[in-house]
Amino acid sequence: MTPVTTDLDQFLTAYDERIRGELFDFLRIPSVSARSEHDADTSRAAEWTADALRAAGLDASVHSTAGHPVVLGEWRGAPGKPTVLIYGHYDVQPAEPLDLWTSPPFEPTIRDGRIYARGSVDDKGQLFLHVKALEAHLAVRGVLPINVIVLAEGEEEVGSEHLESFIEANAERLACDAVVISDSAMFAPGLPSILSSLRGMAYFQIDVQGPAQDLHSGSYGGAVVNPAMALARILATLHDTEGRITIKGFYDTVEEWPSAVREQMGGLPFDEEHFRAEVGAPALGGEKGHTVLERLWTRPTCEVNGLLSGYTGEGAKTVLPAKAMAKVSCRLVPNQEPVEIERLMKAHVESVAPKGVNVTVTHLHGGRPWRAELNGPLFDAARRALASAFGREPVITGEGGSIPVVGDFARILGAPVLLVGFGLPGENAHAPDEWMSVENFTKGMRAIAMLWDELGA
Amino acid sequence: MTPVTTDLDQFLTAYDERIRGELFDFLRIPSVSARSEHDADTSRAAEWTADALRAAGLDASVHSTAGHPVVLGEWRGAPGKPTVLIYGHYDVQPAEPLDLWTSPPFEPTIRDGRIYARGSVDDKGQLFLHVKALEAHLAVRGVLPINVIVLAEGEEEVGSEHLESFIEANAERLACDAVVISDSAMFAPGLPSILSSLRGMAYFQIDVQGPAQDLHSGSYGGAVVNPAMALARILATLHDTEGRITIKGFYDTVEEWPSAVREQMGGLPFDEEHFRAEVGAPALGGEKGHTVLERLWTRPTCEVNGLLSGYTGEGAKTVLPAKAMAKVSCRLVPNQEPVEIERLMKAHVESVAPKGVNVTVTHLHGGRPWRAELNGPLFDAARRALASAFGREPVITGEGGSIPVVGDFARILGAPVLLVGFGLPGENAHAPDEWMSVENFTKGMRAIAMLWDELGA
Repeated sequence: MTPVTTDLDQFLTAYDERIRGELFDFLRIPSVSARSEHDADTSRAAEWTADALRAAGLDASVHSTAGHPVVLGEWRGAPGKPTVLIYGHYDVQPAEPLDLWTSPPFEPTIRDGRIYARGSVDDKGQLFLHVKALEAHLAVRGVLPINVIVLAEGEEEVGSEHLESFIEANAERLACDAVVISDSAMFAPGLPSILSSLRGMAYFQIDVQGPAQDLHSGSYGGAVVNPAMALARILATLHDTEGRITIKGFYDTVEEWPSAVREQMGGLPFDEEHFRAEVGAPALGGEKGHTVLERLWTRPTCEVNGLLSGYTGEGAKTVLPAKAMAKVSCRLVPNQEPVEIERLMKAHVESVAPKGVNVTVTHLHGGRPWRAELNGPLFDAARRALASAFGREPVITGEGGSIPVVGDFARILGAPVLLVGFGLPGENAHAPDEWMSVENFTKGMRAIAMLWDELGA
Repeated sequence: MTPVTTDLDQFLTAYDERIRGELFDFLRIPSVSARSEHDADTSRAAEWTADALRAAGLDASVHSTAGHPVVLGEWRGAPGKPTVLIYGHYDVQPAEPLDLWTSPPFEPTIRDGRIYARGSVDDKGQLFLHVKALEAHLAVRGVLPINVIVLAEGEEEVGSEHLESFIEANAERLACDAVVISDSAMFAPGLPSILSSLRGMAYFQIDVQGPAQDLHSGSYGGAVVNPAMALARILATLHDTEGRITIKGFYDTVEEWPSAVREQMGGLPFDEEHFRAEVGAPALGGEKGHTVLERLWTRPTCEVNGLLSGYTGEGAKTVLPAKAMAKVSCRLVPNQEPVEIERLMKAHVESVAPKGVNVTVTHLHGGRPWRAELNGPLFDAARRALASAFGREPVITGEGGSIPVVGDFARILGAPVLLVGFGLPGENAHAPDEWMSVENFTKGMRAIAMLWDELGA
């Protein structure tokens, strides 16, 4: 299979240098949403995005929120054709520690076929390739084959706090037939990827209270239940020796993956020893009877995220702690419901909590898992477009993490979501020396341009 | 049984007001050894102690150390009679928080038969009653029935760092037939008590290292062994469901207590519900088949003193921690050896440590348990003296904590140690509103004065 060349490709090739220069201008804006000293930069990035959408031929508007603004770009000149909402974000992670960057984070630099800059891949580069794909259509043909809404937010790196209410308040204006998001990575270089799932979350804090205050471990040790030991014993009941979670009913609603997807997953070029070395642990672990990728993408987990009790400084202090705390979170897979997992977790902890301590379980936050509809016109169009641009069939991947906004779009707008990203493993999205592959930027732009042809056909 | 009155008592009664005034002068010196801003006060307390010994009729000298000075008082005018070393300390705990004191910590005040002041019971009051018991002998009779060495240190509240080396360097001068220490409490008001045991200690840090750095619990959770969960599983293996420690060989060298002592212990006025309420826990715990007092005094323990891993702040952070740490300490009873317990603990942890993490056990410090010789002339003399002064037979008690200096004296000087204290439960030794019972101060002084008669007879 060889990549197809179209009139849009010719435009993108002709203006390659200008496009790169514009991207670099975008990357030079330090729109760090987490830092109030960068608020003016973040606003400037919003205006820059709106201007870029206008330059591409869309109507653009900047909408203030209680946080950073939302930018909308709209082109609705294809009545009767599908409407696609493209989501991305113009804010970036903080760049610190600055001394670990090979070149300055806000001075984009190309080395070895990679664009190094904070935000290059997360997500300015991927948002901007969408803008340029739209521009190619409008510049070459004067029209788009579909109706388009671009929604770029400025708070993705700080939890998208005001996005859900914005979508809800503007649901009519944002009504669409599909949502397309490029904010993820391909499985490997040259391997176009469609993300088929995200795990959900139920995050708990377990507090164990024993004596009213810290006691002397000599004067009281042996006759008082030790809350830290009680907590350890509770946590130790959460898995069996085969890595399965022992909370009663935990797996009851877990839906098996389609065997075709599992099979395809098994064929992905994945080296467990390479993964282990990257992690830096002496051995991998997890639930027996599943591959590493299945454990990461298709199976729920129960992890300790934090532990605190008693004396934790240097040396020795002979304290029998009054209390102990654990942060424990479950990653969920379809069709586990956070509220039901909360009920099961609480029942489990209550059933194993020892006498002599008071144990409370608090559900801090939850999010539903998500799985893509892998059949239908949106998915088929994406497969064809990616295959054309990259010269090979895309693979279906999963994601162990959670992106709550995906569920919000699906739920509020009632439209299927396509997650097609052009990052790569090792891209340092939230670390120093963040980069995006020049090839992926170029091919991604073409794939997205083709996607609109496929969807509008 | 009624208390006996002697010529010494008559002296002590006659000078009761002067003695109280001198004690108050001693208590007014804020000799807080932990605070360098009080170094001059601590030195002043050492000189004050030496002066008080001289006034009592002993030779006194102040010996500088790398820390606070050691004060020696000596009277060696009874050749052929036993030599007794009396140990106490002139330093005190910090008084903070000051706003929780009913009257100022360094302005001694009598309320409800109690002397309120920092150091009143720990240990200035108990050290000073020894000085006055010696003075009674020398003032009334011109001689003591035994030879005496008084050793008062100024670093007890900061770990007695330089005491062991001082004893070693001066072993010949400090050679004695018995060591007597009053720095503990009676079991209950009116119940003179001889402390028969101290528990030892083996204090460990367990470090579990998983991945090379903290990981995203979504992207990696399920395929990497979680060090915090691994630590919890290790800790949960340390006890069985009956509260017994499961470390192989742990109880092998534990020596049963003499049944007479156990029986006497069972007859002590101890209310488990009162103890539970004081502790503030919903229920008590510990090793099945033993009373609370047996658990505290005669049985070894294994306690978690601290836990730390991952994210411990407010709210949620989805981190799969790179490492987890626990402080774990065992209280030991005769004849458990800290170095052997270290070997057993390391072997146990190694045998239960899961694959996928590296676990290290570090022995931070240890101390041997101690048990008094409850037969022989020293013990018999103490029983008679206490019975005379308090009008009832003393009880034998234990202590769950550790006082390393007791082992040092016994080991270096090769002499039996008698722990006979005049504090009381609830005396707030290390807390605001520390107090000593006026009655115990008075009777303690008489009991000790009689003890020398008994020993020298």
